[in-house]
Amino acid sequence: MERKTGLILALDETNPERALRIAEEVKDYLDAIKVGYPLVLSAGMEIVKKLSEMAPVICDFKVADIPNTNRLIVEQVKRRGASGVIAHAFAGSDSLEACVDAAGDMDVFAVTEMSHPGGKEFTAKVADELADAAVKAGVSGIIAPATRPERIKRLRSIIGDLLILSPGVGAQGGSARDAIDAGADFVIVGRAIYKSEKPGESAERIVKEIGRTETRE
Amino acid sequence: MERKTGLILALDETNPERALRIAEEVKDYLDAIKVGYPLVLSAGMEIVKKLSEMAPVICDFKVADIPNTNRLIVEQVKRRGASGVIAHAFAGSDSLEACVDAAGDMDVFAVTEMSHPGGKEFTAKVADELADAAVKAGVSGIIAPATRPERIKRLRSIIGDLLILSPGVGAQGGSARDAIDAGADFVIVGRAIYKSEKPGESAERIVKEIGRTETRE
Repeated sequence: MERKTGLILALDETNPERALRIAEEVKDYLDAIKVGYPLVLSAGMEIVKKLSEMAPVICDFKVADIPNTNRLIVEQVKRRGASGVIAHAFAGSDSLEACVDAAGDMDVFAVTEMSHPGGKEFTAKVADELADAAVKAGVSGIIAPATRPERIKRLRSIIGDLLILSPGVGAQGGSARDAIDAGADFVIVGRAIYKSEKPGESAERIVKEIGRTETRE
Repeated sequence: MERKTGLILALDETNPERALRIAEEVKDYLDAIKVGYPLVLSAGMEIVKKLSEMAPVICDFKVADIPNTNRLIVEQVKRRGASGVIAHAFAGSDSLEACVDAAGDMDVFAVTEMSHPGGKEFTAKVADELADAAVKAGVSGIIAPATRPERIKRLRSIIGDLLILSPGVGAQGGSARDAIDAGADFVIVGRAIYKSEKPGESAERIVKEIGRTETRE
């Protein structure tokens, strides 16, 4: 992915039919669809292939194993046509490098900080170091919480021109506009879209709020 | 699982047919089979069900997400008949507690330390705190590297009577006997069994080395 202001749908549905229907309805507003293990374990990896036909898919697998296992996981993701994968930086530089190597032209995004309360216990304390390790490992970008724009600013100063993807918008209380103003490239929105009665209208509203460019580079 | 001296097979095969054949051949020597995402993403969650008919299955998913996502992942694991799941303690107490809650009578094992070089960068530095958080979250046991028996001893002093599962035996250089002597309950062995020309004989040799009790409690 290239740097731009855009919207990523966190498709945290576990029902495959509903997931596909929502994706179809909102795909024109999206730069990517983020899917996690709850959906993949329920629907199988075939869902990644199907969604990839609508928009680029980022597998949010929070990959956090030893290098060889990470490599095998990322190979599976790549085989199904995803455009990116999310890995934890805390498992160490070699683990992250294994993801980047296996990814080839696919994007790897590193988690440097998490938005839930437990994220303060271990990850937040070393978030700057995690970001640093991520840059050195050659990732395409990092994940940084929209709920804390001051952290987005700080992390932007560490990672330079790499991408920042910001979850936590909407249901978790983060503002899409604030995240973008702080330096995020893409906001990741889940429930505010897929739980909406009119997912298309909700996605369109966010796209206007962040000032997404309509064309995809 | 109850405390005893036993053997767990790390079935890190990505070919489902071969994985099932090896499991069938060595199941009588095993207390559990540990499967990871490389196999599950290749074969689908059905493989967990099939392997569960041969021995208890522990899903080594290194679960490391926000509480709600962890809960959804553990529910999927439970639904397929696994006996346990492995989660990272690094994502924080609430994330780990969500796993324990969703697991019910299934075991949750927490990763407190990893055996690869990158494990020294972030996890090893806070391993004692991670073990402490794991105990408080109500896990059944932890994962501790057979390659470092002194760490097994130390972690045993923190977790009391909970289970210790030790990977790193064989190909990674750890000794099964040393891990057990240091306080591990189960050794986790992968390549030394599934890459062996005679997996049954290799498993039998390890069972004798550790002095596994033949009956399953």
